[in-house]
Amino acid sequence: MVFLPGKVGVRIRLFVQPIGCDDFKKVLFMCDACVIKSVKQRMLNRRDLFVGAASAAVATSVAGVPMPALAQPSRNVVDMTHVLSAEFPTFSGVPGISYDKRVDFKKDGYNLYILSINEHTGTHIDAPLHFSEDGKSVAEIPVNDLVGPLCVVNIRGKASDDPDAQLTPDDLKAWIERNGPIPDGAVVAMNSGWSEKVGTGGFRNADTTGDGLMHFPGFHVEAVQMLLDETNASAIAVDTLSLDYGQSKDFATHYSWLPAGRYGIECLAGLDQMPEIGATIVVGASKVKDGTGGPARIMAFV
Amino acid sequence: MVFLPGKVGVRIRLFVQPIGCDDFKKVLFMCDACVIKSVKQRMLNRRDLFVGAASAAVATSVAGVPMPALAQPSRNVVDMTHVLSAEFPTFSGVPGISYDKRVDFKKDGYNLYILSINEHTGTHIDAPLHFSEDGKSVAEIPVNDLVGPLCVVNIRGKASDDPDAQLTPDDLKAWIERNGPIPDGAVVAMNSGWSEKVGTGGFRNADTTGDGLMHFPGFHVEAVQMLLDETNASAIAVDTLSLDYGQSKDFATHYSWLPAGRYGIECLAGLDQMPEIGATIVVGASKVKDGTGGPARIMAFV
Repeated sequence: MVFLPGKVGVRIRLFVQPIGCDDFKKVLFMCDACVIKSVKQRMLNRRDLFVGAASAAVATSVAGVPMPALAQPSRNVVDMTHVLSAEFPTFSGVPGISYDKRVDFKKDGYNLYILSINEHTGTHIDAPLHFSEDGKSVAEIPVNDLVGPLCVVNIRGKASDDPDAQLTPDDLKAWIERNGPIPDGAVVAMNSGWSEKVGTGGFRNADTTGDGLMHFPGFHVEAVQMLLDETNASAIAVDTLSLDYGQSKDFATHYSWLPAGRYGIECLAGLDQMPEIGATIVVGASKVKDGTGGPARIMAFV
Repeated sequence: MVFLPGKVGVRIRLFVQPIGCDDFKKVLFMCDACVIKSVKQRMLNRRDLFVGAASAAVATSVAGVPMPALAQPSRNVVDMTHVLSAEFPTFSGVPGISYDKRVDFKKDGYNLYILSINEHTGTHIDAPLHFSEDGKSVAEIPVNDLVGPLCVVNIRGKASDDPDAQLTPDDLKAWIERNGPIPDGAVVAMNSGWSEKVGTGGFRNADTTGDGLMHFPGFHVEAVQMLLDETNASAIAVDTLSLDYGQSKDFATHYSWLPAGRYGIECLAGLDQMPEIGATIVVGASKVKDGTGGPARIMAFV
């Protein structure tokens, strides 16, 4: 735990992050000890602080202690975004991006591409408008809904046994039993282990005969109905190509979740590095006017 | 200030954010009062906490106090991204995005566009590769460089008097005099007041005769040289169409900054809502393979 002494002109904020119970005693004692020490230190330093207030030169240090970079979270940022390329697997099977190099460094002194992008390619957003006539576009999703607690529901076991597995209400109930209610504004993510299949045929896992339907996990419609009825989760996320499982013929999950005004994330990476609860996800959704979704840069602070 | 009582299985983190000096006394006293109260409260609650540790059911509350959403920052998220549309002004004057609606809800049951996007459109990134032969692509910028302390250098006054104004070493020195050294990993942003001109001809502010050069502020090459020599800033950002001012004919700032392996942000929004120091910027850069930049969703935690 990093503890930062208070200083002139500093507002202290507290972020709370659950950890395993194994070491909670140690952490509790550490917290109290640090907090008490801090109170004392700040009281002792108050005179210095008031003096310091008159001096702009000390604005980044107190009693010689360098002010840490404000972006402490940057030490614990995890990228949850796959690299988007023409090789990245898509739902349709057609490349989702193509490049037109309009300006070239060797010839023109700089580089620039015009990109053609299917909105629903790579690690990306499904905005409500994707499956509704007049739902919110990706640019209209409130920015506060793009930052929230990440709840990771692990179904790797059953997905390993059965690629047509779905995340069900029972999976959510088991998660809640362990972690408590799903917080308001949460992003509820399915970790099926599919992320590691990117670059192999196992990611799409399509039938080579018949209707060519794919085999990968998704949210069961009853699970999203439960989330709609019982939570204020902002989004659901999958590490596969679709909120619905690959065998869906009716997109029941899409049609339940998106028109209700909530949004989805597909092809999310990095879930294996996430705790079940405790990370904060930041969804850098594209802000294209009228967009039905779009590639997003997604990170988590852990 | 929100103060959260400690609880079982909770790690407390502290983020530090400067505020204006006008109310530092109040904040200091508030901090101390809250911290002391918290220490007492947690000591009193310790027995409850140990008891609570045995019960998964209390994982989201302590003594009836609901556990706040983990993403407390979401209450203080500021969007720093302009909506990207075909009307958004571009450096070239040609629309930077076009839409091809491939799937329509009324006819097909859902909506989907194929978008054609000039990488350097809207609120976007300039990756080192934009102005170098083999610099980092946008997908190669380390994720830790996408989260950092935001340093806002206000040149609204002189930009209002002279649209060809530039952010100079003297502006940086004055900022440092007030706020201390520029932290490692910082994003150093020019606030010229240009953001509010989006939607008017004043944003591009192009000559209608002659070479058609534009008039808007940017970073002077000597300022970026100072940042390169004296700081570990990750990026510079402007609220205008270019890191270089509009009258530049040689892109000296681009050629100094980007090939050095640092990146740029253009058309940043929301700077008027930011303190000079204290916000953490999160740069949701696109992650397109070989991309020389790209539209980004940029937010700040304040």
